[in-house]
Amino acid sequence: MIEQLKHHIERFVPMDEDTFLNVQAGFQQQSFRKKENILTEGQICKMHYFVLKGILRKFFVNDKGVEQTTEFAIENWWMTDSFSFMNRTPASFCIQAVETAEVLAIRRDDFDSLLEAVPAMEKYFRCVFQKAYAAAQMRIRYHYEHSREALYHHFRESQPEFLQRVPQYLIASYLGFTPEYLSEIRRKSIS
Amino acid sequence: MIEQLKHHIERFVPMDEDTFLNVQAGFQQQSFRKKENILTEGQICKMHYFVLKGILRKFFVNDKGVEQTTEFAIENWWMTDSFSFMNRTPASFCIQAVETAEVLAIRRDDFDSLLEAVPAMEKYFRCVFQKAYAAAQMRIRYHYEHSREALYHHFRESQPEFLQRVPQYLIASYLGFTPEYLSEIRRKSIS
Repeated sequence: MIEQLKHHIERFVPMDEDTFLNVQAGFQQQSFRKKENILTEGQICKMHYFVLKGILRKFFVNDKGVEQTTEFAIENWWMTDSFSFMNRTPASFCIQAVETAEVLAIRRDDFDSLLEAVPAMEKYFRCVFQKAYAAAQMRIRYHYEHSREALYHHFRESQPEFLQRVPQYLIASYLGFTPEYLSEIRRKSIS
Repeated sequence: MIEQLKHHIERFVPMDEDTFLNVQAGFQQQSFRKKENILTEGQICKMHYFVLKGILRKFFVNDKGVEQTTEFAIENWWMTDSFSFMNRTPASFCIQAVETAEVLAIRRDDFDSLLEAVPAMEKYFRCVFQKAYAAAQMRIRYHYEHSREALYHHFRESQPEFLQRVPQYLIASYLGFTPEYLSEIRRKSIS
């Protein structure tokens, strides 16, 4: 399954078999059960995860005790608590498997060693973060621009795969709805 | 003034004088007047800007014709329309100088050549984008977590410099307030 990471890297930089052996050495494959907690707010996030199969979600618990989902990662996406991973500070987010998941995980020290040993990975991660940052800027625009109902329709059109795979209460949590409000919007859009 | 970019690069990677001559060659220095438009939505964003002095802002015009500010960049920050710059597609944002500004600008082709010629710049930009992405994720959390009034107080505590330098109507635009609502919050927090 590690070939999947090689294919993803090759979207951005050429990667021969020998170099990839070096890359591969830094990763460990991990499996998570549905709803298994991978990171809890306040812990140091020691890993950067590449999703091979399944879905992870990132969330925080708001002051009413409600889990607020801020991000999903499906196959070929990276997920971590970025500041916690970079600065070895307590995490601001929790990470959980939405469904059974297989990931490749890399520790912070191995991440640094990998970038040192394989300069092509600097380019790869520069591209990954540049794209993720661009997407976050667009997302901030959507949050300003659209009503929450329009956000649901935008999400439904742009990410139909998520809507089929992710339970409704998590979609509601991501969009900042109550599950009841989401049901109401869905009823309206079907009728 | 170009030394300022060298200092910023050296926060992330070592950079000797000779290598920096190569870096420098890709940039041109530009000046903008207060309120000068640097990029208009729909144009191709050809430049990535590094702010030497002054403030830039990024905004879009919403369907009510109101300018909605989504980002500011002060000294030592980078700003561009990321997707437009990366993919040479029409920009989703406008960029404008808030006050008289001096920037270093690099064209897309020169950006690619620079990364090719000076591999240390891959690491530098990997770090810049990784940090910017981490900050955007925290910002998305704040948007979910806090009332708009709390966002103002958070902004006031975390970015006091902005509040002194940026006109009130732009702070209101950034926070998604009407200027009247912002005045009301400020009155309450003073009294």
